[in-house]
Amino acid sequence: MVLTERKLIAGIRSLAAKPANRAVVKGIGDDCAILRLSQGNELLVTTDLCIENVHFRREWHPADSVGHRCLTRGLSDIAAMGGEPLACFLSLGLPAGRSGKGLLEQSLLEKELPQKWADEFLLGLHRLARKFRVQLAGGDISSARDITADIIVTGQVPAGKALLRSGAQPGDRIYVTGELGYSAAILKQLYAGKKIRAEKSNRHFYPMPRVQAGNWLREHGFCTAMIDISDGLSVDLAHICEESGVSATIQASAIPIAAGADLNLALHGGDDYELLFTAKKRAEVPSRIAGVKITQIGVIESRVTSQPQIRIAEDGKASRILKPLGWQHFGEKG
Amino acid sequence: MVLTERKLIAGIRSLAAKPANRAVVKGIGDDCAILRLSQGNELLVTTDLCIENVHFRREWHPADSVGHRCLTRGLSDIAAMGGEPLACFLSLGLPAGRSGKGLLEQSLLEKELPQKWADEFLLGLHRLARKFRVQLAGGDISSARDITADIIVTGQVPAGKALLRSGAQPGDRIYVTGELGYSAAILKQLYAGKKIRAEKSNRHFYPMPRVQAGNWLREHGFCTAMIDISDGLSVDLAHICEESGVSATIQASAIPIAAGADLNLALHGGDDYELLFTAKKRAEVPSRIAGVKITQIGVIESRVTSQPQIRIAEDGKASRILKPLGWQHFGEKG
Repeated sequence: MVLTERKLIAGIRSLAAKPANRAVVKGIGDDCAILRLSQGNELLVTTDLCIENVHFRREWHPADSVGHRCLTRGLSDIAAMGGEPLACFLSLGLPAGRSGKGLLEQSLLEKELPQKWADEFLLGLHRLARKFRVQLAGGDISSARDITADIIVTGQVPAGKALLRSGAQPGDRIYVTGELGYSAAILKQLYAGKKIRAEKSNRHFYPMPRVQAGNWLREHGFCTAMIDISDGLSVDLAHICEESGVSATIQASAIPIAAGADLNLALHGGDDYELLFTAKKRAEVPSRIAGVKITQIGVIESRVTSQPQIRIAEDGKASRILKPLGWQHFGEKG
Repeated sequence: MVLTERKLIAGIRSLAAKPANRAVVKGIGDDCAILRLSQGNELLVTTDLCIENVHFRREWHPADSVGHRCLTRGLSDIAAMGGEPLACFLSLGLPAGRSGKGLLEQSLLEKELPQKWADEFLLGLHRLARKFRVQLAGGDISSARDITADIIVTGQVPAGKALLRSGAQPGDRIYVTGELGYSAAILKQLYAGKKIRAEKSNRHFYPMPRVQAGNWLREHGFCTAMIDISDGLSVDLAHICEESGVSATIQASAIPIAAGADLNLALHGGDDYELLFTAKKRAEVPSRIAGVKITQIGVIESRVTSQPQIRIAEDGKASRILKPLGWQHFGEKG
């Protein structure tokens, strides 16, 4: 069945019609959505672009996995501030429609999308949104040559309490949630031509953002800085170090490497959506938070005024400099 | 000069570094932006997707016009609620970068973008943002085959005071700001192969959102419903009628047709970014608001439970039904 604007809008409106979050005063159907924050809270906003053949491939990722993964990226950013997600917005460009009022020539549309793909994409997004009480509250649609989804997630956090990247201090311990490298290991297999069934429990296809753990960490006050590991541990730890103006050392043997991954994938693979955080030396950090394993992987070193250095210590070897080799938006280091 | 991620991010950060709005507590550089609304205000959010060859053409529109037009779409939505814009977010996909960590095959990049295009796009967006004290506070970047910009604009409005599409009542008068059809008339000439210089005063290339007029209308309390005319008068008036559950009649002779346009372009052309509003019959609506001409063009008729009817009366003829023939997102009516 061919994709039409009428059917797409009807599908989006039916998902958005069910109230999921009281913060949404007015959802889809006006020039803007209207949201009301709780007293004493600040607004969090994050946007993440997902483009076919850049962030996913139609032949590798089922449509509902694409919808799920898009929203996970935004929710994971809210989690990394210790925030509570409220509403999401979807700007969706799809290969659809005949040449008309839009400026897209019909000849450019190589592969028109079936309605089923759009329906399943929305379903994947919607299932995850429900789980976290996030309301789909607006967006935009358009023709496009490649499937293009920009997901905006809004959230709230008590004023002044968001966990920033810039708070790490010398002596702080570095921790991660969960295990690292799993998503990159699956991607490596997909590149190698292996067929992989997208089981619902597979964290590459259906990654779960660590919203509860992020909130727990904010509420308990010992966390000094936090980021989500979406671009890879080496890149995201470098962000913490840059914003905090500190250096760091991590222990290779301490890194929780996921089954099927190796140290390299755990260090530089992206898309894990775990949290990386720092805490005071004497903080009593539990071994599990909100059901997720917590592992200490290193230490924040001295304050620096120039480019921070991250070192990795491997058993029986001299420590070496760890370069940030994770995800680059334009793939320049590939 | 070839576009690189480092140069693009440096350009975005330098524009975003200058504080433009006190609501932005934390801008670019963390997992989320943090905004603080004024006491007693609600949040407004709108997103607008701009895709090459759908919303603009590289050979017709200078890069700074594309940046300006993207942001105008969002600001115009804030204006249509009577809101005050605060911060914008930009998700930007550009034809750039070599095959690497991203999944985009190098062979798919037909036309790599020069750095100059990105710089001028950002400049066009930034100039307009400054004018309205809107801070660029976050976003995302990616490789893409076609230039893709999703603009998110956030704003605030005193709680419960936003002007919705749903408030029009039988007997209300229908008004528009400015003149209609100009942008569509220019587009028609571009389609016909005419070269048009993008003068800064040209409302097709550099349309000005009616933010001050929108705020004035909200503050003065006589306005019952409002929408911006982005998809064309016929489509946008239909949205007001649908959301309010009313029918309407407009007078052809009353419509303020822009120089170079005709009735058809004024009725169905999009991209004018004027405001359409309704006001109580006895309201004293000034002939200019915030420097912009105000014209009464029709009347809200009876309440309806089914599909609302919009009629247009032309001098000396029986009135006829006006079909919504403006912009369709997938161009299905073309």
